[in-house]
Amino acid sequence: MTHNDAHPRPPLALTMGDPAGIGPELTEKAWNRRHDDDLPAFYVIGDPTLYGSTRLAVINDPAEAADAFPEALPVYPIELATPTHAGEADSRNAPAVLSSIQHAVLHCQDGLSSGLVTNPIAKHVLMEAGFSHPGHTEYLAELAGVARTVMMLSGGGLRCVPVTIHCALKDVFGQLTIDAIVETTRITAEGLQAFTGGRRPRLAVAGLNPHAGEEGRFGDEDEVIIRPAIEMLQKMGIDVTGPHPADTMFHEERRAEYDAAICMYHDQALIPVKTLDFHGGVNITLGMPFIRTSPDHGTAFGIAGQNQARPDSLIAALKTADAMCLSPDRTTAQ
Amino acid sequence: MTHNDAHPRPPLALTMGDPAGIGPELTEKAWNRRHDDDLPAFYVIGDPTLYGSTRLAVINDPAEAADAFPEALPVYPIELATPTHAGEADSRNAPAVLSSIQHAVLHCQDGLSSGLVTNPIAKHVLMEAGFSHPGHTEYLAELAGVARTVMMLSGGGLRCVPVTIHCALKDVFGQLTIDAIVETTRITAEGLQAFTGGRRPRLAVAGLNPHAGEEGRFGDEDEVIIRPAIEMLQKMGIDVTGPHPADTMFHEERRAEYDAAICMYHDQALIPVKTLDFHGGVNITLGMPFIRTSPDHGTAFGIAGQNQARPDSLIAALKTADAMCLSPDRTTAQ
Repeated sequence: MTHNDAHPRPPLALTMGDPAGIGPELTEKAWNRRHDDDLPAFYVIGDPTLYGSTRLAVINDPAEAADAFPEALPVYPIELATPTHAGEADSRNAPAVLSSIQHAVLHCQDGLSSGLVTNPIAKHVLMEAGFSHPGHTEYLAELAGVARTVMMLSGGGLRCVPVTIHCALKDVFGQLTIDAIVETTRITAEGLQAFTGGRRPRLAVAGLNPHAGEEGRFGDEDEVIIRPAIEMLQKMGIDVTGPHPADTMFHEERRAEYDAAICMYHDQALIPVKTLDFHGGVNITLGMPFIRTSPDHGTAFGIAGQNQARPDSLIAALKTADAMCLSPDRTTAQ
Repeated sequence: MTHNDAHPRPPLALTMGDPAGIGPELTEKAWNRRHDDDLPAFYVIGDPTLYGSTRLAVINDPAEAADAFPEALPVYPIELATPTHAGEADSRNAPAVLSSIQHAVLHCQDGLSSGLVTNPIAKHVLMEAGFSHPGHTEYLAELAGVARTVMMLSGGGLRCVPVTIHCALKDVFGQLTIDAIVETTRITAEGLQAFTGGRRPRLAVAGLNPHAGEEGRFGDEDEVIIRPAIEMLQKMGIDVTGPHPADTMFHEERRAEYDAAICMYHDQALIPVKTLDFHGGVNITLGMPFIRTSPDHGTAFGIAGQNQARPDSLIAALKTADAMCLSPDRTTAQ
């Protein structure tokens, strides 16, 4: 990995996130680890007053970030509407939070940034200011003009993609369709090439029921929904196996055999990743025309400003975005 | 841990399991590790011809096992009806398989054995010979005269108890009741005292839905079923917390805070244990009048007799049974 080659890639853009959450603190902590963790050059799009403990380089062009990065945290300035107090969310600053995200997307689209890392936002704070999107990722997808994205969780040497996500477990049975599995897996297979250097990614699909249904003994979804989806994907030329019993597919030997696991519901995907690596988990959005990663935690208003928050996940998100930029496939594509 | 004290505890009884599965091979491999793994004295109740690679001590009384154990595998003989071939299950030997289990239970009940470790059986083979119990544990429970037992999985420093077990995920919603959670947790709390040396066990109850339902946003079972069950248990004096979001309760820091997790369904319990420790997982039956553990795998007919099977889980099952015998509470009780 070289960040100082003759034609360096553009830096990563990091959004401000909610200014009253742990985002500003994590941003400073991550920058302070730039040498120890060999971090790629990044700049934060936010209000410079949020980063008071750090030497700053206010920049007006992302191209200035790489040179400044070793000695100062590059800040592309977005002004807050009102001063912020750690832990006290204030919807008056929602426009600045959204502006940071919009700028980051524009920078990626214009090739000024090679990828986007987002600090956590608080949807309820933004909703008070009129934000109507179901979430951060949906907002990004709309800005990027993409209809369908896929969330991948990465941690502990494991990557998991949930087909259904934020719904009651009971509602999984209505949402889990052949189409949902096929589309999620197809987007994952395409997006994962950024990690595999163009090699065809190997995907393992989890069953829904105990022991993947044990040939129909425990529920029929594994045979009626999941297996036909896998067969369709195989016909599309995607390297995919399953349905695998979920309890025996995530241990070390097995996870070396695939690049990502396609999981049927939220906890099936998140339990193994967070059990293995609670602090360093990364959320990766696939299916966007640019790279996007984020730490796998929220704004944590309760501990904001108390110097307690751990930057492990943000650091992992920066490194993951960087690794995706470095893939030959991605380089060719750009 | 001393196995040579003045008044030694009786040895552990190990059942034969299916003679055509990996049980005999694992039994020999475990005995061969007796010194390296500091294993407690045990004897196997099976046909001596199954253990042809090992020096044997055929015993007629479990009391002879401890003295023989360092130099020979003690075998309490049960004759097979017909010679066995590895990998080829034969229902003619079902009576011998069941006789081994029956003898082990009697030895525990008579105080000749301090605990029972079972090798895997194949239910379909036994059913051909008229066996009508839903499984190994139910059969043991009937022999012991117990109406309700609890299955606990242990591995990787984590103990998990599923409230619902071998059913379709869809059927969890019908089976998950306040009573089921209360009874499972109560039996777990009593049984766990064998591990905690009499200290009141700390139990953590998982939620059913993502983020434990997020205050009703994702399903109502966490508030309508799980929380009332926890409140009833707390009134009974049991140290229990929850419902906890399942994805964030199994990592290293969190699992140090409880002695066992009460899980709502099969994969919620088994994914974290088997992700952390695939080879060394142990199945523990709580609620019986004696200790019972077993390796967390099946007969594996496909690799039987090929010297491929790993004895990690059987060794862990023997050590776990021994640790449960050693608890002050258990010692007092006997």
